[in-house]
Amino acid sequence: MDQVFTTDPVVEGVHFLHGEIPERIGNKAVGRVLSDIAAMGARPQWLLVNVVAAPGTEMEYLEGIYVGMSALCSRFGATIIGGDLSKGAQLELHLFGTGLLPSGSALLRSGAKAGDSVCVTGVLGGSSAGKHLDFIPRVEEGIFLRETGLVNAMMDVSDGLATDLRHILAQSKVGADLDAEAIPVVDGLNAALYDGEDFELLLTTSDPGSLQAQWKDRFGSGLPLIGKITEEGGVLRLDGEVVESKAYEHFSNHNQGERNE
Amino acid sequence: MDQVFTTDPVVEGVHFLHGEIPERIGNKAVGRVLSDIAAMGARPQWLLVNVVAAPGTEMEYLEGIYVGMSALCSRFGATIIGGDLSKGAQLELHLFGTGLLPSGSALLRSGAKAGDSVCVTGVLGGSSAGKHLDFIPRVEEGIFLRETGLVNAMMDVSDGLATDLRHILAQSKVGADLDAEAIPVVDGLNAALYDGEDFELLLTTSDPGSLQAQWKDRFGSGLPLIGKITEEGGVLRLDGEVVESKAYEHFSNHNQGERNE
Repeated sequence: MDQVFTTDPVVEGVHFLHGEIPERIGNKAVGRVLSDIAAMGARPQWLLVNVVAAPGTEMEYLEGIYVGMSALCSRFGATIIGGDLSKGAQLELHLFGTGLLPSGSALLRSGAKAGDSVCVTGVLGGSSAGKHLDFIPRVEEGIFLRETGLVNAMMDVSDGLATDLRHILAQSKVGADLDAEAIPVVDGLNAALYDGEDFELLLTTSDPGSLQAQWKDRFGSGLPLIGKITEEGGVLRLDGEVVESKAYEHFSNHNQGERNE
Repeated sequence: MDQVFTTDPVVEGVHFLHGEIPERIGNKAVGRVLSDIAAMGARPQWLLVNVVAAPGTEMEYLEGIYVGMSALCSRFGATIIGGDLSKGAQLELHLFGTGLLPSGSALLRSGAKAGDSVCVTGVLGGSSAGKHLDFIPRVEEGIFLRETGLVNAMMDVSDGLATDLRHILAQSKVGADLDAEAIPVVDGLNAALYDGEDFELLLTTSDPGSLQAQWKDRFGSGLPLIGKITEEGGVLRLDGEVVESKAYEHFSNHNQGERNE
C-alpha cells in the first residue's frame, strides 16, 4: 500500500466567521482534509488536530468543534489520534491526515492527456451559501473513481473550477476548453469558476462513456462532462475564449475581502 | 515496523517573540517535533508544515524559517513533504511529523516500575537563556536508548522536569523521589523543575549500571541518575519532601506571562 499525507488550516476570519456554530467549523476542518485524501482516491486513516484558541475561549465551544470533527470522521472510518492546543489571537484548527491506497495507484494532477474529457462530481458555486461549512467530502466517490482505472488526473475543487483546473493543466502540460452550458452551477457561472470551496472532485478520463455508465450504476446519478483537455499547454478556454487567471491570493494587497464569507 | 505521529504548534508570543531570528524559529519548530519522535525511540521520517502569517509578512523572513527547518531536518534524515499557508494575526508554525521504529518497541510513559532509576540525558533549566530556540533534539540518543532494551518509560522534557515526570507517574501508576543534588542544572533547581523546553530525554530503567555503561561507550559522557521510582501512585518527592503540582496552563486566568520569554 501507499500512504498519502495532507495538511490543511482552518482559520477564523479566513475560512469561517467569529461565532460560527462550532460543529460546522469541525465539519469543515475534517472535510477539507478528507477531501484532499479523496482527491487522490485514498481511504482516510488517521488525523491529528492542532487547535489555537484565544484565552477565555469556552471549553464547551471547543467541544462542539470536536463533535463536528468526530461525526465526519466516523462516517468515513477515520480516527483522530492526537493533537495539541495553544493560545493565539484567533481560533484556528490545523489538521493533518493520512490515507491509504494500493501502491502506485494514487490519482495525481499530472496525468491528464490531450483528448481527455473533463468531468466533475457535482454542482459548483454554492460555497458562499454555506456549502463550504456543511459539505460532505467525496470520499467514497474518490475511491470508486480510482478503482475504475479510467481516471487519468484528479483533484478536489477548493479554489474554484478555473483556478483548480489550471493546476491540472500546469502539471499535465496540457490545456482545456470548458463548455459553459455543461457546467452544473448554482449561483451562476462566475461563482462556479471562482468561488472555491465546492469540494467536488474534478477529473479527466479518456473513456467518459464507460466511466459515466459505471458511475450511474454505482451512484444512480450523472457524472457531468464539462469540457475537453487540449494540447495548448497551460491555456484555459471557456466556449473557445481564453480565460485569464484570477486566483484568490492570501497575501495580495488588492484583496477584496475575506474568503467565502 | 510501527509508525508514530506527532503534532506541535509554535506560536508568536507564546513560543517565540515577534522579530526573532527566523532560522531559530524554524529550528525550534522542527526540533519540537523531532524531540517528540525521539522520545518514543523512533527515527524521524516525514514532516508537513502549516504556516500562518500576517498579511505583509516578508517572504524572505518565511524563507529564513524554512532554512532553519530544513537544516535540522537534514541533520536527522527527515524530509518536509508538504504543508499549507494561511493568514492570521500572528506568525505560527504547525508541524506534523511521522517516525518509524520496530513493531511494538515504542517507549511510552506508561512503562515505569517501582524501583526503577530515573535518568536524564543532559542539563536542565537553560530554556530561558535561549536553549528553547537553539536546542538539538535527542534523536540519536532516543534511538540508542530504545535499542538497549533497558529503558522502561521515556518522554522528552518540554514543560519542566517536575511537570513532565508527573505524566510518567500518572500513566505508570507509580511515584518518584528525586535527588536534588544529582539533577544537572543551569540557572538553579527551580528552572530545572519548572522552566520547560529543555528537550532532554527523561527515562526510567531497572538496570542503571548497564545502561550508564553502554551510554558512556556510545556518547563518551555520563547519563545522570536523578531519582528513583516508588510505589506511591502519583506522588512526586524531592529529597523525600512532597512536591506540589505547578504547571504552565495556556488557559489559566492567573498566567504569569508568556512562556519561556
